[in-house]
Amino acid sequence: MIGVLELILCDIGNTTFHFLINGKHKKYFLDEKVPKFDEEIYFVSVNEKASKKLLKKNPKAKDIKEILNFETKYQGLGIDRKIACSFQKDVIVVDAGSAITVDIMENDEHKGGFILLGVQSFINAYPKISKKLKFDFEKNINLDKIPLRTFDAIQYAMLKSIILPIKEVSLNKKIIFTGGDGEFLSKYFENSIYKKDLIFENMKRIIDANNCIA
Amino acid sequence: MIGVLELILCDIGNTTFHFLINGKHKKYFLDEKVPKFDEEIYFVSVNEKASKKLLKKNPKAKDIKEILNFETKYQGLGIDRKIACSFQKDVIVVDAGSAITVDIMENDEHKGGFILLGVQSFINAYPKISKKLKFDFEKNINLDKIPLRTFDAIQYAMLKSIILPIKEVSLNKKIIFTGGDGEFLSKYFENSIYKKDLIFENMKRIIDANNCIA
Repeated sequence: MIGVLELILCDIGNTTFHFLINGKHKKYFLDEKVPKFDEEIYFVSVNEKASKKLLKKNPKAKDIKEILNFETKYQGLGIDRKIACSFQKDVIVVDAGSAITVDIMENDEHKGGFILLGVQSFINAYPKISKKLKFDFEKNINLDKIPLRTFDAIQYAMLKSIILPIKEVSLNKKIIFTGGDGEFLSKYFENSIYKKDLIFENMKRIIDANNCIA
Repeated sequence: MIGVLELILCDIGNTTFHFLINGKHKKYFLDEKVPKFDEEIYFVSVNEKASKKLLKKNPKAKDIKEILNFETKYQGLGIDRKIACSFQKDVIVVDAGSAITVDIMENDEHKGGFILLGVQSFINAYPKISKKLKFDFEKNINLDKIPLRTFDAIQYAMLKSIILPIKEVSLNKKIIFTGGDGEFLSKYFENSIYKKDLIFENMKRIIDANNCIA
């Protein structure tokens, strides 16, 4: 385990390099300079250009996809979703970022999933329809009452658009939330937990498992 | 009734002047020239600037809001939603345009409603998150099967985001769909009908009722 703790992990998304260095989080925007590190680095990336940028400074950094073994019938499942779903048995995995990916694990098998718009995407999309639909999002919307003003009518609809598709597939199942809006959304689900560092935790487990085999 | 048939009706939205002239539909974009008509005109408008443009050419055109009497506790309910809900008793009224308004009528009373993103808004919002989420919308998505590729994963999620919030409030109730995507969406609801000209039909009834009183 000591060896693993000395690793640097990096999650490369569509907006940032997200590092985990000695248990501490450090983010750089994709157009910022990334440092050169002395430690061993493993990274996961959904952005090839950004991967190359990391590798230019850190040519020994290892892409976790090389050691990941995740089977699914889903064509083109993103590497981040594969990692989030790794080691899960019967559970719904929700990564709530700029998009909200929802994946269904059943009997250790990945059964498929879907991709909702992220919270910020909804917030951005309404005012594009009409200036009258511009709003400041507040997180305390009563979802048990039919709205009686436009401000509530938008936020109610937006939250229902996110929550109900997840509810529909999660009947009686546990839900693991991760991602920037994961904590907020998890509050609408009784059978849920929020794991801020799900991706990093699973990366470590994948690396550990690989080291044991090797 | 003959008098009513000679009327010209106009529905002014965020993109077009939509006329009903002798039972025929005629649309002009908001930046196009609008004709001068000899007939009596009643219009409904959610766009004040466009109303002024119509009135400049047709100074006698009448704004239907002057004769509409629709009570609700909903603050700032759009005039188009008021007209669509007029004369409805126990029904859900869905106007599926650039936004999708959903209104609940119960015992002749407007109980509130909410505003979903329109189909085109969803289509536009996904590629803004990532180019990988760009897709050509096709209308034959299987909603009973968890998707196994990104193309389906987006369309499934998008349709669920629209359909499930409407399903939730419509249990056992009839749903009237109108608007550009109303016919397509109504197919997902057993208890639904599609009324292409709901707004114009109700405008006529409001004008008739007003003429009877006068």
